[in-house]
Amino acid sequence: MSKQKIGVIGMAVMGRNLAWNIESRGHAVSIFNRSKEKTDEVMSESKDKQLVPTYSLEEFVDSLEKPRRILLMVQAGKGTDAVIEQLRPLLDKGDILIDGGNTYYKDTVRRGEELAKDGLHFIGTGVSGGEEGALKGPSIMPGGPRDAYDLVAPILTEIAAKAPDGEPCVTYIGPGGAGHYVKMVHNGIEYGDMQLISESYAVLKHVLGLDNQSLADVYSEWNEGELDSFLIEITSKIFTKKDDKSDKMLVDMILDRAAQKGTGKWTSQSALDLGVPLTLITESVFARGLSSLKEERVAASKQLAGPKAEKFSGDRSAFKESVRRALYMSKLISYAQGFAQLRAASDENDWKLDYGAIAKIFRAGCIIRARFLQKITDAYKNDGDVKNLLLDPYFRDIVQNYQGALREVVAEAVRVGVPVPGFSAAIAYYDSYRAERLPANLIQAQRDFFGAHTFERVDEKGSFHAEWAE
Amino acid sequence: MSKQKIGVIGMAVMGRNLAWNIESRGHAVSIFNRSKEKTDEVMSESKDKQLVPTYSLEEFVDSLEKPRRILLMVQAGKGTDAVIEQLRPLLDKGDILIDGGNTYYKDTVRRGEELAKDGLHFIGTGVSGGEEGALKGPSIMPGGPRDAYDLVAPILTEIAAKAPDGEPCVTYIGPGGAGHYVKMVHNGIEYGDMQLISESYAVLKHVLGLDNQSLADVYSEWNEGELDSFLIEITSKIFTKKDDKSDKMLVDMILDRAAQKGTGKWTSQSALDLGVPLTLITESVFARGLSSLKEERVAASKQLAGPKAEKFSGDRSAFKESVRRALYMSKLISYAQGFAQLRAASDENDWKLDYGAIAKIFRAGCIIRARFLQKITDAYKNDGDVKNLLLDPYFRDIVQNYQGALREVVAEAVRVGVPVPGFSAAIAYYDSYRAERLPANLIQAQRDFFGAHTFERVDEKGSFHAEWAE
Repeated sequence: MSKQKIGVIGMAVMGRNLAWNIESRGHAVSIFNRSKEKTDEVMSESKDKQLVPTYSLEEFVDSLEKPRRILLMVQAGKGTDAVIEQLRPLLDKGDILIDGGNTYYKDTVRRGEELAKDGLHFIGTGVSGGEEGALKGPSIMPGGPRDAYDLVAPILTEIAAKAPDGEPCVTYIGPGGAGHYVKMVHNGIEYGDMQLISESYAVLKHVLGLDNQSLADVYSEWNEGELDSFLIEITSKIFTKKDDKSDKMLVDMILDRAAQKGTGKWTSQSALDLGVPLTLITESVFARGLSSLKEERVAASKQLAGPKAEKFSGDRSAFKESVRRALYMSKLISYAQGFAQLRAASDENDWKLDYGAIAKIFRAGCIIRARFLQKITDAYKNDGDVKNLLLDPYFRDIVQNYQGALREVVAEAVRVGVPVPGFSAAIAYYDSYRAERLPANLIQAQRDFFGAHTFERVDEKGSFHAEWAE
Repeated sequence: MSKQKIGVIGMAVMGRNLAWNIESRGHAVSIFNRSKEKTDEVMSESKDKQLVPTYSLEEFVDSLEKPRRILLMVQAGKGTDAVIEQLRPLLDKGDILIDGGNTYYKDTVRRGEELAKDGLHFIGTGVSGGEEGALKGPSIMPGGPRDAYDLVAPILTEIAAKAPDGEPCVTYIGPGGAGHYVKMVHNGIEYGDMQLISESYAVLKHVLGLDNQSLADVYSEWNEGELDSFLIEITSKIFTKKDDKSDKMLVDMILDRAAQKGTGKWTSQSALDLGVPLTLITESVFARGLSSLKEERVAASKQLAGPKAEKFSGDRSAFKESVRRALYMSKLISYAQGFAQLRAASDENDWKLDYGAIAKIFRAGCIIRARFLQKITDAYKNDGDVKNLLLDPYFRDIVQNYQGALREVVAEAVRVGVPVPGFSAAIAYYDSYRAERLPANLIQAQRDFFGAHTFERVDEKGSFHAEWAE
């Protein structure tokens, strides 16, 4: 009986689609799922495909060529631990486990170290692109031992998305939890992008009073320029989708309570640990939390009045362009923050991340894919050691030229009472980052006053303490 | 030989001052420090005081009445674990360990459960007020087993600060890590207060051009009204302190790089875990991180230009009053967020926190002491179940009346390029919380579009999915 080069465990939609993707490149694929019914269901959907069903882990393991390549697409957390525990005694030295779930990167480090004791290789890889990406080509962010990666690189390269220039959207990220860490930050950036788009929507709707068709036109037009991206593209389509249960547009029938699965939260928590100011993504995570307080908000809306603001009386077309610029500048700032976090994490963990290569593999397959990502790759090609993307010439020119628009949009939104936490965080970060002097001297004075925490001086090195209360 | 009712381990400034505080109420106190020299130094500073030095943990333990009351004032983290490990075999069932450090609350839970196996009681208590508070009367937030608390309550009550109405600033907070959790959020609130004051300083200085003497006058005047608080009081004094190394004022010679010790970060990370939007405190934590990037900021200040804004041309005195209102409203919003977090944590851990009592013990002794805290106690007296302090009549009236000022200050600061992340977070939270409808419907549409994550509808219960790409 011939054996397969690779097998996939977990036949939920992502696992199934990845198995189909691999199969479509000419590889027979062993599959296994905890429940037999699911395996049979997938087999019935896979008539002309070279999928090999197995009904026990023993049978699954036995069906694979050595060294075995096993892609785990099971529930992150306990689900992953449980499968690994069952698999472990069945495997041989040199076999490779690839975890493609949205796993917390510290779990990946722990599992990798644990499995290495048995001579087993563990690769934690980010896989982005949703269902469609999994099927047709996702962006893939593998981390773990380099030599083990080399053994799976050919297949991962075949199934990855291809960027506009033909390059596959996969690259070795780094050792340990590096792959899952980068995927986590990718997801955090996705939270930021979505929050910023939703703020632009709120401003266009409430300040300019645009209807859904006009909104669709605006995003469609924006998708032709600098903002060209998957998320802007689907946004333009969302506004033209009719509801099939009413005579309204579907977007207006959707409850304004945003859910989350945890990767955004992890990104913010890690930024806090690293001391990296990740304000925009964190505001985006909190904004989802706020949105979920729907009943409280409805009650509060009846008790807490807004401003008595007059209607917008400026140039509507100019303001629309200002919103576009505010969105683009805020997006640049969000990425500058996210990549500053990657840099800090790379230093902390000695991952030696290649930021330009990371931006490159985001260009296709994944949710944040966008024309703009090429600018990040270019920035790191320009200066591989640039401390903050805002200092790259392209970024610098944009933010300097667009800051007026962002200031105008924030001021107008604040005036009329439309919440723009992401836009506000963007301009606050810009003004803080470019401030030679911040009022933190007062904070240090206060800390020394009440707690003798000492302070540094502008003119002399060392720690100083003053008797303030005299 | 007579034995002492209580002993203190750790003779750094907080431990020493607490020992002196206890002694000043008429109790002899056993003391111990890892290094003999420190103990001798404290004894030489304690000539007429009933402090009993001990030079081994055995001698220390043997010097105490049973059940022993031992206050640990050692380094949080490993230092605490090390002392507990050494003490444990020396103690008897029923003895009480009190950890008064800035301990992470989950460590307190773990230690309490561990020590309970030996029949030892563990109380994790917040102690706020800095050096002076420790000596003269801190605000004390004890958590742990209720019956053990009752055995130390008389002493804690004696040494606690007294509020203006004479009530001692100590109350039983709740089981497990409740005391250290409340102290953690207290510190987070302190970060927020300090950030907001520093933003008001930056706006007054850069928009109105106030000099240090004028700033001292402003804060001094503000301290007579609603903003009456320890932090505003010391702020007014800071601006009049001369530097003894130059002819400048000291505040201008202090480096603008704010340090942090971790409790603010923990507060934000816990809020993220609970899904509570703690935007203002989190922006304050990130602002400290940003301030610490001094070299990067100096370099960026030469490359990233600010706005070309004309000078402030409005009514200066009216704008000053607007800054005061912006500061007070933002402070109210920060506390509303912090107490919403306490509520969520209490529900999650089944602590049954008494929010009104907590605000009450913040009225004296601690860093955030302020006249305004009585308003929080009153709010919970009014409605013990109020979901968010903004819905209390006092808070509601203030935020409705002051929102115009906050909007004006944010718009002006954004216009001229003074970063106000805390003020911005405050108005964004206000406008989000009072929004019957947020643009999160678009986020849910996007999530369903690319990941089939489903959405809820406004008119029908359940989860729905649409074929968006058709």
